[in-house]
Amino acid sequence: MRIAYQGESGAYSEAAALLFAADADPLSCRRFEDVFVAVAEGRAACGVLPMENSIGGSIHRNYDLLVEHELPIVGEVEVAVDHCLLVRPGARASDVKVVYSHPQALAQCERYLERLEGVEIVAVYDTAGGAKMVAEGGRTDAAAVASMRAADVFGLEIAARGIQDYAANITRFAIVGRTAAPPEDATKTSIVFALQSTPGALYKALSGFAVRDINLTKLESRPIRGRPWEYMFYVDVDAPRRSLVCGRALVHLGEFAQWVRTLGSYRGWDARPAVTSRTIEV
Amino acid sequence: MRIAYQGESGAYSEAAALLFAADADPLSCRRFEDVFVAVAEGRAACGVLPMENSIGGSIHRNYDLLVEHELPIVGEVEVAVDHCLLVRPGARASDVKVVYSHPQALAQCERYLERLEGVEIVAVYDTAGGAKMVAEGGRTDAAAVASMRAADVFGLEIAARGIQDYAANITRFAIVGRTAAPPEDATKTSIVFALQSTPGALYKALSGFAVRDINLTKLESRPIRGRPWEYMFYVDVDAPRRSLVCGRALVHLGEFAQWVRTLGSYRGWDARPAVTSRTIEV
Repeated sequence: MRIAYQGESGAYSEAAALLFAADADPLSCRRFEDVFVAVAEGRAACGVLPMENSIGGSIHRNYDLLVEHELPIVGEVEVAVDHCLLVRPGARASDVKVVYSHPQALAQCERYLERLEGVEIVAVYDTAGGAKMVAEGGRTDAAAVASMRAADVFGLEIAARGIQDYAANITRFAIVGRTAAPPEDATKTSIVFALQSTPGALYKALSGFAVRDINLTKLESRPIRGRPWEYMFYVDVDAPRRSLVCGRALVHLGEFAQWVRTLGSYRGWDARPAVTSRTIEV
Repeated sequence: MRIAYQGESGAYSEAAALLFAADADPLSCRRFEDVFVAVAEGRAACGVLPMENSIGGSIHRNYDLLVEHELPIVGEVEVAVDHCLLVRPGARASDVKVVYSHPQALAQCERYLERLEGVEIVAVYDTAGGAKMVAEGGRTDAAAVASMRAADVFGLEIAARGIQDYAANITRFAIVGRTAAPPEDATKTSIVFALQSTPGALYKALSGFAVRDINLTKLESRPIRGRPWEYMFYVDVDAPRRSLVCGRALVHLGEFAQWVRTLGSYRGWDARPAVTSRTIEV
């Protein structure tokens, strides 16, 4: 199955694609937008998008893109992030003078990087892209913060492993597809809605879920573009869209929200039978 | 008044410091952490921190730092962001081959930058820092996305102005100080709390505000570091901490939350008598 992802080969998004489907054939895309376009145009069966990291929080750009595009969420994958300092063969951590990585990966390894004195930290768009710059650039004193897999892909050596500040570092990815009909075995539903800014508005909107004992596994407010300080809300609930309680709670929500959209209903990563542990290390 | 901010002179944070106090004497700091340390050690009377952008959303790192440190929020400032393409004197936009800026500023100008064909986009830690790289680096084909003020500070020319995708682009800054007693004229209160993940937990926690008609102007869930998918919540309410209704709602919240902390109670930017328009352009 062709699965589009953002970044170079060796990126965590590529690992998520490989975890989602045993027969995955990952398709590298330059930007997140390109992932949506590849799926919409049929060049890929689905696409993988990082939505949230357990330390860094939500990747807001991708929530915005889900709203802008019409592709439904059809699944989710969790990947345990294990950052490594990758250097050219023969180089050591003490030789390093410049480190490339994605800003979020750099932020996640802040304490480790602070101990590398006199080292320049350069933000690039993708962890694996940073590894590629180390492998192909002219500098022998350059390093990248990226995955173990990126070391294999670009022929680099692992000077240090597990350099993130917090060991429990997990990224959750959404899988977007073209078929809107939720699978029979769906367990979760992702919703987005907008509210007028009045006292109690959110309280009233969420009451339909609370009185039906539907658990919210995520709630996030997002500014509405071009309308400062007006908000939409992203909510994940532990109930399939097809269930009677979820349907009724959504009707209730529709009564209080300015608009409501279901982004998708799908089998949660926790509920996948093949998964023994909650995450798989890459 | 000495006010610490992150970035080089010409950064939007420096503009926020100048807006907060007529007698502001801005103190440049390398990192956000350094802003907290400068205030805690008494080298600055207060510090200015970007908290939220009307397009990009919350700056989560700074919410984390507010929780890690003990400094209260004592005020807020809003700055209208007007990004410019800055080049070396005599250069034109068509000459540009590389653009430096902060990742969030680059994201905010995505459509404009896409039209500059064959241009390399490089993320750096600070918009004004990008301008400094253009002014002091060896390349005549480099440009930066930064403020008009940064052009003055570094002797650059403005090749294009207002290049952000959405005109209504505002950043909200928190002012942190050392005095915990809220000012008499406070209008807002910022709170952080943690909840057990059970159905209706947030609904019950917020009910104390809803039944007292206290408006929530912000609500954001944040992962708790090292405990994947457990959340804390950041809430701003339109009521001073000293008011009876806010006090009672906080007692109610304390009954349902695992813990609650008031980050500060202060005069909202809207409520400042000297401000005629909601924002000031820099």
